[in-house]
Amino acid sequence: MAINRRLLLRSRPAGLPADSDFDLVEAVVPAIGEGEYLIRNRYASIDPAMRGWLDDRPSYLPPVAIGAAMRAGTLGEVVASYADGVPVGAWVKGINALEDFSVGRGDDGNRLIDPTKVSSITHYISVAGGAALTAYVGVHCILQPKPGETLLVSSAAGGVGAVAGQLARLGGATVVGIAGGAEKCRRLTEVLGFDHAIDHRGKDEADFLHALREAVPDGLDLVFENVGGAGFDAALLHLKPRARIALCGLLSEYNTPPVGARNLREIIFRSATMRGFTLLDFPDQIAPATDHLLQLAASGEVCFAEHIEHGLANAPAAMRRLFEGGLEGKLILEL
Amino acid sequence: MAINRRLLLRSRPAGLPADSDFDLVEAVVPAIGEGEYLIRNRYASIDPAMRGWLDDRPSYLPPVAIGAAMRAGTLGEVVASYADGVPVGAWVKGINALEDFSVGRGDDGNRLIDPTKVSSITHYISVAGGAALTAYVGVHCILQPKPGETLLVSSAAGGVGAVAGQLARLGGATVVGIAGGAEKCRRLTEVLGFDHAIDHRGKDEADFLHALREAVPDGLDLVFENVGGAGFDAALLHLKPRARIALCGLLSEYNTPPVGARNLREIIFRSATMRGFTLLDFPDQIAPATDHLLQLAASGEVCFAEHIEHGLANAPAAMRRLFEGGLEGKLILEL
Repeated sequence: MAINRRLLLRSRPAGLPADSDFDLVEAVVPAIGEGEYLIRNRYASIDPAMRGWLDDRPSYLPPVAIGAAMRAGTLGEVVASYADGVPVGAWVKGINALEDFSVGRGDDGNRLIDPTKVSSITHYISVAGGAALTAYVGVHCILQPKPGETLLVSSAAGGVGAVAGQLARLGGATVVGIAGGAEKCRRLTEVLGFDHAIDHRGKDEADFLHALREAVPDGLDLVFENVGGAGFDAALLHLKPRARIALCGLLSEYNTPPVGARNLREIIFRSATMRGFTLLDFPDQIAPATDHLLQLAASGEVCFAEHIEHGLANAPAAMRRLFEGGLEGKLILEL
Repeated sequence: MAINRRLLLRSRPAGLPADSDFDLVEAVVPAIGEGEYLIRNRYASIDPAMRGWLDDRPSYLPPVAIGAAMRAGTLGEVVASYADGVPVGAWVKGINALEDFSVGRGDDGNRLIDPTKVSSITHYISVAGGAALTAYVGVHCILQPKPGETLLVSSAAGGVGAVAGQLARLGGATVVGIAGGAEKCRRLTEVLGFDHAIDHRGKDEADFLHALREAVPDGLDLVFENVGGAGFDAALLHLKPRARIALCGLLSEYNTPPVGARNLREIIFRSATMRGFTLLDFPDQIAPATDHLLQLAASGEVCFAEHIEHGLANAPAAMRRLFEGGLEGKLILEL
């Protein structure tokens, strides 16, 4: 009988998720009923949002319960099916438990993906996964950059930021990215086509403000915010009137008590608009955005990179890697 | 020869404006030229925004320069005129220097007001002044409450908040107000028609959250924010998905280093939108909003109160009174 390895949440992390916050257990492979299918999960997208799901607080998804399986964005193959239109051998993408085998059914958010559209199935995580799709809706549905507008994106070498910056640049914006270290900054301007890169290492709010004034002296029309902290506070001081902010993440404080935005009053003084969002706000955009992103990647208009780690047992370590920095591409866990 | 008393800024206040931050000087009454008119300023609206104009930082209006006259929203009579359509005896409203006599000209924002529409000219400050008009645009242009939606307004007994809450209630919203002290809270529910009142005195974030959960268990659709601090942070924790926030002021931190919003990440988790604004963003709304507010006051649908202090020399003390709390109506300075 096949075994279903499952990663269960043992305790809520106080800061970064520790290995000891999880239990890797073995269970029987679940049985499927009428209208259901069995997914062999193959890849998981490791994303900052996963940290938020570990806290016991209301959010856009319920917290992962103690004793329940951790969840992630996954790609998997259908290995058994009693569901019409979901044949064995098909690939599905969804938010599922971090386990070898999950049960899919009609309305659970799993959807079929087409492996013939990509050279590697992992592109559905790296080019057209949750992070890239989040970048897409943030740029195209919220910020809607116009040619000549200036945009700042933080965590610009990350899974969301790298795509957001490139999409904004394709839309004609002048794009400034914040990333950690000279090598990542070089990648932003030389590989991803960003206009300016700011290395966040060692910078306080005044340093960030100085760097922003050098890069875009007239101020920021748009901010795609993933991090928070001193960089975001400096950005608030450098907004143009009527600036628009897409608040996507506050990576700097997911493992600590919240700090928020100290310079929030600039939102008043600049008559700015800040919109918080997650991909789940735009369900109708997922299919067209996926096709669009795969096309842009195939044509080379959007560059992307993957960083693949291996093994379900390494999921907690992979989550920590996200917050430690130093990744060169979208973090994917091969199960 | 008539004397023009003027209140000049001597030094930038570190916290609350002190008398010693200003000089009351006597100057000659300014001469007027072709197309200009002379205004005898009679009343000034004393507003929290004035504190912001004293800091040396870019904002929606330039800072008041050291040695220049402090400015305020004023009502005045035209006492001499070389301007077509602005007869002697007319009343004008605008943002002018805090001085006995100001010069008006075509494009400076002063506009004629009609004293026959009101029983006291001061209604153009209390019912239809900057504070009430700001409430109007925040409610009708930004929040647009729908029947059954829940709205929180802070500084709810203040010049902006009292009008915002009443307008939202006329729009069918369930309105919760935060104010300081039992007497003000009684006024909110018994006189102004608010559904719930929360006394902010002695409350920390957890206390506010508890009070909000009691008042509107299902959460907040709308926030009209004037204050910031623990009340606002609690409100962020009690937002419904897709909540809308009109960020009008952060009264709690105008005289201190900024703190901002600690729980900003809730904006992401709830997919909320926060719009910062000032009245200056909505110039086309001023005339229709003025008429609307005067009608609502005349019909008794919107209650209002005035707190009048006297004398140009008392302007700094009046500004301090705003932040000290305890006012029962719109603060007006008779010059």
